[in-house]
Amino acid sequence: MNDINGLAVHAAGAHLLPFKVDAGDLKPNDVAIKISHCGVCHSDIHLIDNDWGISKYPFIPGHEIVGTITAVGSSVKDRTVGERVGVGWQADSCGICEWCRQGEEHLCLKSQPTCVGRHGGYADYVRVNSRFAIPVPAVLDSENVAPLLCGGITVYSPLRNHGVRPSSRVGVVGIGGLGHIGLQFARAFGAEVTAFSTSKDKEAEAKKLGAHHFVNTRDTGALKKVAGSFDFLLCTVSADQDWAGLIASLRPKGMLCVVGAAPSPMPISAFSLILQQKAISGSPTGSPRDLHEMLDVAARHGIKAITERFPMSAANEAVAKVKKNQVRYRAVLTN
Amino acid sequence: MNDINGLAVHAAGAHLLPFKVDAGDLKPNDVAIKISHCGVCHSDIHLIDNDWGISKYPFIPGHEIVGTITAVGSSVKDRTVGERVGVGWQADSCGICEWCRQGEEHLCLKSQPTCVGRHGGYADYVRVNSRFAIPVPAVLDSENVAPLLCGGITVYSPLRNHGVRPSSRVGVVGIGGLGHIGLQFARAFGAEVTAFSTSKDKEAEAKKLGAHHFVNTRDTGALKKVAGSFDFLLCTVSADQDWAGLIASLRPKGMLCVVGAAPSPMPISAFSLILQQKAISGSPTGSPRDLHEMLDVAARHGIKAITERFPMSAANEAVAKVKKNQVRYRAVLTN
Repeated sequence: MNDINGLAVHAAGAHLLPFKVDAGDLKPNDVAIKISHCGVCHSDIHLIDNDWGISKYPFIPGHEIVGTITAVGSSVKDRTVGERVGVGWQADSCGICEWCRQGEEHLCLKSQPTCVGRHGGYADYVRVNSRFAIPVPAVLDSENVAPLLCGGITVYSPLRNHGVRPSSRVGVVGIGGLGHIGLQFARAFGAEVTAFSTSKDKEAEAKKLGAHHFVNTRDTGALKKVAGSFDFLLCTVSADQDWAGLIASLRPKGMLCVVGAAPSPMPISAFSLILQQKAISGSPTGSPRDLHEMLDVAARHGIKAITERFPMSAANEAVAKVKKNQVRYRAVLTN
Repeated sequence: MNDINGLAVHAAGAHLLPFKVDAGDLKPNDVAIKISHCGVCHSDIHLIDNDWGISKYPFIPGHEIVGTITAVGSSVKDRTVGERVGVGWQADSCGICEWCRQGEEHLCLKSQPTCVGRHGGYADYVRVNSRFAIPVPAVLDSENVAPLLCGGITVYSPLRNHGVRPSSRVGVVGIGGLGHIGLQFARAFGAEVTAFSTSKDKEAEAKKLGAHHFVNTRDTGALKKVAGSFDFLLCTVSADQDWAGLIASLRPKGMLCVVGAAPSPMPISAFSLILQQKAISGSPTGSPRDLHEMLDVAARHGIKAITERFPMSAANEAVAKVKKNQVRYRAVLTN
């Protein structure tokens, strides 16, 4: 019961290999979760490859976990055995800093990511602080909900926290693992939604997912045609963009929020922000509060990730496919 | 009475020369103001030199105007003859767009700057739409209040509109024409205030103006020492900065707001915004609503620009001195 059997990476870029850990006694504030599903997030790939220089080997990747609580620590009051829960990027935090106290645990400076310095969800069991085990509404399918726990919250939180509403014109840049969920949530907020993509062939699906309009960013002058159009642009891609063009496509007081990290610095002209009071922001994943709310919204609005399922034993194959951007739109491992 | 006698620029970078305009009949929504004082703003210099490519020659510069209303148009209901009023960057707007209707006339796409395509305050009279003639509280001295009408509102509006409050840690970067007013307003909002300057010799004055702390940005490692410290940074300088260092000095959810336009694009790393939910914004001057409020706050908190006075006839001298950054902190012309 204290053994965790998973698939671990032992060095940067290495294949996943079977790995057993003795997790020891369950800590007072932790819950043990028997994992049924785990999404393969692009962040897992970055951790496997140590792109961010924060990986600690060996480790079991996986931070889009759905499973059932099998045990609760002696101090846990908010969760019970048998509950189906989800776990995202974060597994614990200090619990006492200003951010933890105001329900923004994701900003805690001692935040513990689920699979950095800990073992994540490519496994049979995982343990997290009970605050980070979020009950999953019964109506949601585990496979489709798993990618919401990191990919979904990454797009939900900025829409929520920057005040997107029914009068908003929202653009979602990049229709992939994040963007295809972003379109659905933006629509749920009542916004007029535009999908930006380099892939013309995604237009029909983008519209099915909630986009009213489609901008093919490969078209010359496409951004010029939408100059001054958007209150909020959510940029989900990790590639360099025509940042000046995106900022010019904002209306006065508009905000460009980046959730994908472009490789090069964004060369932003101060004037392009000053004249019409525009802003650029970044957003990481989201707080447990936002996760609770997002799952409720997903349940009530029928929002789900479009997934491709792999057995846990095919995790290396799933990782390779995600790496090559061949999954539409999120890979999910199942036990 | 319809003649305006002022000092105009006839070509980019030219000296100011005496200039007479026939202003014609007073428009129904306009007021005529007999000018007593006019600040010399750095923006005047940019307009004189056509740095922004928007100048229309010949024109009379000046957009930090204080004077007395001598006539009101037939439709004016909000102002009366004899009132002392101030006029800032903006003299008119369309009055019917969404921004005008919600009291954010400064964002109107048809905004009319006071001295672009019109004649400004280096003159005996000026005419503006009555909405842009802001009553000046009796307790405020005309000379000290003139620079608030552009320089002051430029720093007041972002502090107000981005929610600076008594729990905020605010940094004001650059202690010059804008920054020395920014320190006073930031203090009035109850914030803990830090002045950032390249001039060590400004420390004592910055503290007198409201700064609790002083960071000499010439010191190696000065920014590193204040990493993670500020909720809001107001960057008032028009020179390139260590943008990465400034962003790193923000706390989670912190915002860097630029009101000075750096010459080079700011190379912003997406990651530096994403991880702790930071943002960079720009802010232009401010709305008439904010101008009213700012003057009220200035009156009640004793906030004033530190000025150097020149007679209107010495306007060329004042402009030259402002251009060389030799005025501490704002030049004001008097009739």
